[in-house]
Amino acid sequence: MKTWPVAVLAAVIVGSVVGSGVRSSGADPKPATAEHLLKLEGEFMNAAAVRGADGYMSYYAEDAVELPNGADAIQGKDNIAKTMGFLNNKDNQLVWTPVYADMASSGDLGYTYGTFEFRSKDKDGKPVVGHGKYTSIWKRQKDGRWKVVLDMGNDSPAPNGT
Amino acid sequence: MKTWPVAVLAAVIVGSVVGSGVRSSGADPKPATAEHLLKLEGEFMNAAAVRGADGYMSYYAEDAVELPNGADAIQGKDNIAKTMGFLNNKDNQLVWTPVYADMASSGDLGYTYGTFEFRSKDKDGKPVVGHGKYTSIWKRQKDGRWKVVLDMGNDSPAPNGT
Repeated sequence: MKTWPVAVLAAVIVGSVVGSGVRSSGADPKPATAEHLLKLEGEFMNAAAVRGADGYMSYYAEDAVELPNGADAIQGKDNIAKTMGFLNNKDNQLVWTPVYADMASSGDLGYTYGTFEFRSKDKDGKPVVGHGKYTSIWKRQKDGRWKVVLDMGNDSPAPNGT
Repeated sequence: MKTWPVAVLAAVIVGSVVGSGVRSSGADPKPATAEHLLKLEGEFMNAAAVRGADGYMSYYAEDAVELPNGADAIQGKDNIAKTMGFLNNKDNQLVWTPVYADMASSGDLGYTYGTFEFRSKDKDGKPVVGHGKYTSIWKRQKDGRWKVVLDMGNDSPAPNGT
């Protein structure tokens, strides 16, 4: 469970988004807006929900880096993919909620951050939930498609101190 | 010690920088390059070394967010500053090494990531070292100055498993 900041297997909750970086219009977002990143994150989450690790990794750039909590940085999509098999386990669910997105004026580099829950089961089959935060940096690739070039996660306390 | 991904009090090590996002020219960097962010990080580290928490916070945007490991997100420079007093304790040293930097083509949004060491003392006065990684997102402000708008840290194992 080293690389779980941005993914989802089952329920997807896209929460409220705050901050000046986000265009709040309901119209179809232009590729160069922060709102476009939120749309991409929704597609990204759906891909992981439907196709597990393969769907999740399809949104990573070839030269992406993963910065997992408690482990060293993982360089490159192929190496990151080796750590994502847990997304194929139906007992594991990652639910994430972007809090904010922003985009460069050139529309080729942006980021999101937010919170996530990792719902799993312990060795006795008892449900357990981990809480955390993530940052994902998105970059438009040479072919025009958007990919995650950096993803980082860390821990949060359970809400209400429970 | 919740908000310590990017700062330094004493020794500063700016390590090797890899990746296509960085301009490796030794010439003075233009404001719009990834190399400029590395120069800014050097200035940022020096400010923290000389002026402690005040110097550190002088590189944060008013609307910055801190995503500390083990705690909830902290919104806004004023709230983040309340957690940075440890930078004024001479027993604490944060040494960080950027690994990579990249910049949007518009030159108004970029990021760095890297590793850090937090050198401190335990309750018995014995030196202790914590290891981690960080991501910092930089944004050019309306007045033309560059500030950190997002900073996130997490843990790494000690090198060589020690």
